[in-house]
Amino acid sequence: MAVNVAIVGATGAVGEEFIRILESRKFPVKELRLLASKRSAGKKMRFCGVEYTVQELTRHSFQGIKIALFSAGSSISKEYVPYAIESGAVCVDNSSAFRMDDDVPLVVPEVNPQDIAKHHGVIANPNCSTIQMVVALKPIHDVAKIKRIVVSTYQSVSGAGLKAVDELQRETASILAGKNDFQRKLFPHQIAFNVLPQIPQSNAFLQNGYTSEELKMVNETKKIMGDHSIRITATTVRVPVLRCHSESVNIETEKKITVAEVRKLLAKSPGVTLMDDPANQVYPLAPFAAGKDDVFVGRIREDESIDKGINLWIVSDNLRKGAALNAIQIAEKLL
Amino acid sequence: MAVNVAIVGATGAVGEEFIRILESRKFPVKELRLLASKRSAGKKMRFCGVEYTVQELTRHSFQGIKIALFSAGSSISKEYVPYAIESGAVCVDNSSAFRMDDDVPLVVPEVNPQDIAKHHGVIANPNCSTIQMVVALKPIHDVAKIKRIVVSTYQSVSGAGLKAVDELQRETASILAGKNDFQRKLFPHQIAFNVLPQIPQSNAFLQNGYTSEELKMVNETKKIMGDHSIRITATTVRVPVLRCHSESVNIETEKKITVAEVRKLLAKSPGVTLMDDPANQVYPLAPFAAGKDDVFVGRIREDESIDKGINLWIVSDNLRKGAALNAIQIAEKLL
Repeated sequence: MAVNVAIVGATGAVGEEFIRILESRKFPVKELRLLASKRSAGKKMRFCGVEYTVQELTRHSFQGIKIALFSAGSSISKEYVPYAIESGAVCVDNSSAFRMDDDVPLVVPEVNPQDIAKHHGVIANPNCSTIQMVVALKPIHDVAKIKRIVVSTYQSVSGAGLKAVDELQRETASILAGKNDFQRKLFPHQIAFNVLPQIPQSNAFLQNGYTSEELKMVNETKKIMGDHSIRITATTVRVPVLRCHSESVNIETEKKITVAEVRKLLAKSPGVTLMDDPANQVYPLAPFAAGKDDVFVGRIREDESIDKGINLWIVSDNLRKGAALNAIQIAEKLL
Repeated sequence: MAVNVAIVGATGAVGEEFIRILESRKFPVKELRLLASKRSAGKKMRFCGVEYTVQELTRHSFQGIKIALFSAGSSISKEYVPYAIESGAVCVDNSSAFRMDDDVPLVVPEVNPQDIAKHHGVIANPNCSTIQMVVALKPIHDVAKIKRIVVSTYQSVSGAGLKAVDELQRETASILAGKNDFQRKLFPHQIAFNVLPQIPQSNAFLQNGYTSEELKMVNETKKIMGDHSIRITATTVRVPVLRCHSESVNIETEKKITVAEVRKLLAKSPGVTLMDDPANQVYPLAPFAAGKDDVFVGRIREDESIDKGINLWIVSDNLRKGAALNAIQIAEKLL
């Protein structure tokens, strides 16, 4: 039953999570192949107590591989996924390269596991900010049909990779020390003690003024939910948080659903943990969700500005459920 | 023409701004009386090159005072505003004590200056997060009539006072140093490298699950705009930013208004600076707005999820336009 697994982008923020989660979930790994750019080749990483050496990614890297987990950016996926498929692997791709392709399933196992079977060698893993939102909203959609979503995000810097985490920490230290000479490499503006209404950090903006991250939330949500009638608008914002994305989500439903009903529904939904006790100041928070698997939901309130509206606060670990965990859950379903 | 001015809460975050702004705007101050709690009495503060000694606030503090600027919390305002009125002063009160009283005007000079004349000794200064939103939305409301607002905020810690600024800085330093023993005094949870969907930091939650800050945005907006038909829902979030609040605002209008029209309108609106050039990564940011008077608006986009919707990103200095500056602008109109 054990299979050969390759990780493309093994030394990145999501790559590291892939290794940890394969290990902790006892994924049936026969051989593990860690792949990365030439620059990272030779690096040592541990999996289940054994040291592995990272190899340079080439077109020949996928010989004998059954499952290839990709998280090294769109251009790498576009170039190497075809070689992996040719070698007989099924790819779970965390980049945006194939997400909106009609013949590529875009899957969150709690939402549309049935789509996995339709794959032709590659299954796309959705964007982090989309995954946590649809896990929380699908149970509500099934019962009350969501007509419209207005979402504003509070996204951590780890969504931009390990270098972004480092940049936030160094810029924060520089500002605390009263210095004024910090050299930014990644973010277009100060991220320490600031919030940036721009994701990603370069080539973000489209003709209509939206960022690509915002459009991902709109388009991917419709595809995963399998309902193109849902209307969505998003504002995505980078915040000086190391890990986990938070989201302020407003929904309008076709059928009335009360706060009590939403709570009851989410309390029993797979992949969701309800954290909603305002009297005791209990609601989901990034430092709490970090390293955990679930999507945490709280601050559930009736939106009194419309007849059938609900506000929610949704927090999840962007590197786990938002990326590596979701991909590995897909791989588990594949086997 | 010069008048005697008292500042109640002179040593607080807003109190310090009162002094700076009175000076920079050359407000016609004859005598300045700095008032605070017994604990702060005796402290020295400078105004126009002269050293002033902070006096303890008592019921007799307002003798001869023409304008009393209050920013020392609701209970102080409730207790001392009547004495100030009795002494013949007109009070501009930055607390929430009287804001929703029917016979107390709640004023943003760019929006409803006409309400100032209706005062009976006290004019309420709105909540910081409300002020910047209505300054940006009023010109749009006048042209296209706003039917509904969905707002999520990114509010800086200075809104919770100077001690909150100190707590964020100390907690941040502690986390960067890898320590795990920081003793919080103000915030209910970690604020460094985190976002907190709770404002204020204690006694925040009402029966319906909303915080008092969220309800302020709903109720104050209607009163200032003089239009109780506007439907509003808010989620207010504290972010690890020192100064300036940012807001993701979604509006639905009765009449269609295009992005180009909104830009043109806001570019000529008093108190607003348009900063909306996504191609060059130009949009409003907290560190830029700090210390400035205007409300900065950018990321203006058509909300494609409805027929007549617009998204905006609104940033302003919560201690200036959100508090001290707005109060002093009211006082200027009073004179």
